[in-house]
Amino acid sequence: MRIAVDAMGGDFAPKNIVAGAVSALAAFPRIERLYLVGDTQRIQAELAENNCTDQRVEIIHTTQIVEMHDSPGDAVRKKKDSSISRAIDLVKESKAEAVVSAGHTGAAVFAATLKLRTLPGVERAGIASVIPTETNLFVLIDAGANPEPRPIHLLQYGIMGAVYSKYALKCPNPSVGLMSIGTEDLKGNDLTTGAFALLKETELNFRGNVEGHDLFENPVDVVVCDGFTGNVMLKTMESIAHAIFHWIKNEIRKNPIHMLGGKLARGALRRIWKKTNYEEYGGSPLLGVNGVCIIAHGSSSPLAIHNAIRVAAESIELRINPLIVEEVKKYQK
Amino acid sequence: MRIAVDAMGGDFAPKNIVAGAVSALAAFPRIERLYLVGDTQRIQAELAENNCTDQRVEIIHTTQIVEMHDSPGDAVRKKKDSSISRAIDLVKESKAEAVVSAGHTGAAVFAATLKLRTLPGVERAGIASVIPTETNLFVLIDAGANPEPRPIHLLQYGIMGAVYSKYALKCPNPSVGLMSIGTEDLKGNDLTTGAFALLKETELNFRGNVEGHDLFENPVDVVVCDGFTGNVMLKTMESIAHAIFHWIKNEIRKNPIHMLGGKLARGALRRIWKKTNYEEYGGSPLLGVNGVCIIAHGSSSPLAIHNAIRVAAESIELRINPLIVEEVKKYQK
Repeated sequence: MRIAVDAMGGDFAPKNIVAGAVSALAAFPRIERLYLVGDTQRIQAELAENNCTDQRVEIIHTTQIVEMHDSPGDAVRKKKDSSISRAIDLVKESKAEAVVSAGHTGAAVFAATLKLRTLPGVERAGIASVIPTETNLFVLIDAGANPEPRPIHLLQYGIMGAVYSKYALKCPNPSVGLMSIGTEDLKGNDLTTGAFALLKETELNFRGNVEGHDLFENPVDVVVCDGFTGNVMLKTMESIAHAIFHWIKNEIRKNPIHMLGGKLARGALRRIWKKTNYEEYGGSPLLGVNGVCIIAHGSSSPLAIHNAIRVAAESIELRINPLIVEEVKKYQK
Repeated sequence: MRIAVDAMGGDFAPKNIVAGAVSALAAFPRIERLYLVGDTQRIQAELAENNCTDQRVEIIHTTQIVEMHDSPGDAVRKKKDSSISRAIDLVKESKAEAVVSAGHTGAAVFAATLKLRTLPGVERAGIASVIPTETNLFVLIDAGANPEPRPIHLLQYGIMGAVYSKYALKCPNPSVGLMSIGTEDLKGNDLTTGAFALLKETELNFRGNVEGHDLFENPVDVVVCDGFTGNVMLKTMESIAHAIFHWIKNEIRKNPIHMLGGKLARGALRRIWKKTNYEEYGGSPLLGVNGVCIIAHGSSSPLAIHNAIRVAAESIELRINPLIVEEVKKYQK
């Protein structure tokens, strides 16, 4: 398989991107070609830094970089030679089967939608993030592609999220919840009440509205929400988990008995810390575009990029897009 | 001071409400009168259950209960003899100086706005929740009063949140952040970009957009957002903190060495657990109404109600409303 990586996208690009790519190449022999798209000189320097002479790497030179303050439209229309645009072009031209970017999410979504188009029946793409709980993994969709959706988009997110849960996470009959404020049918805002009416009419295993409380206590398998709320939730969840472990560590250090206890319990604490660490998940698929597009964190570490490339490889093998098209077709009017 | 408590509001009402009220009466001798508003017989039974014969209690009998599926408007207009409406009436008639409710948030906000009116210059009330981090307490406003605000409402939330942070939490020059998806000025949706422009023009210590990541790593003192996002965030934060401790406990139990470690480190873990437990905070003021109105959790325990009544007592003493009016006046056009 062939994967295109936006080497210039992300807060620590190209350093962390190249380091993660080198690590992924070593781990996944089934990658036949890995395109690193960006400034040749800087990418070569990072490859040398990582002692990488892997013949599967091909650098695609680009001259422009999308800056975080660029608007998504401008970034794509005015910077045609940006690393993200050119990486997506490789998928469009069938030179690569997937693209990975840790850069400007809005620009990646805009470029992927414009160049690859959405799947038949899908109006807007949505980012599907996988979140761990004690008892399951749930799919949060949309985690940030579409901050002002309409109810029909949330319906399509529910369908795509359920397909992803079923085939990628092997959840046999995924339950779907609509993120809202209050579990009663009519609670929420205009968007959620509209989406509720649409989701209720489907054959999905729809559980109605869910609240923050439900996410971890009695979790559903797919959580549907607008991209603004989803992005805020995702980043808040990551942040609070990280903060709690940091806080525990500092509190334990204040007292030698607690410190001894912390050392003895370390294995258990580490296991959970690892489960709640987003870097282990790495990247989230942008579902609904005609191709495989993996969105990684802006602040991705090499480990996060390694895992985003793993998710890209798995997504290529999964061939989920035809399944999405088939499911969405059921609800077209 | 005199406080009115909606004894029928909440998932475990009147049981937990009365138990919390009895505990608060014992703890706070400065409460001169505590109105328990609701079904006399059921309240009396709970008072007997708690061996309470405190002469400061006065039951105000009501015949109607707002159900969670009632729309806020219907709940207030059609159920004039509901516990929440009558409890707010006591504030309106100056028989009480504050009201506490763990019932239907939408109905409480609607009734308080209708009966007490908003403060001069404030268009919409907002719920101000206090969230602990390792290094500070921040105010999240709006945590659920107004799920479809306009930019001007967010401006007013920023002002009210800063006043609350300064006077209630003793933060000298509170920094204010606007919750968004991306820290660049133009990131977000129409609401946040509109609010950004307004907040930037104030004398507030405005830090621009903040993301979930910023909440705990380099926290601001006031986080401004719409009531939908705020409510989802609040419940998600509570839920994940609770879930992580539960998860740690179960993981530690799997291995005797980890269990011993957990026992030794228990003091430190408990201290943080307590800090992240919303019951310790109890209730959030509805800022912007002409009176003191404390919104407690629907699932409030007796401890949460005890603390919500404490917050009510503190809010009465704080006399924050004139300070809000003065600050808001600066930005009226």
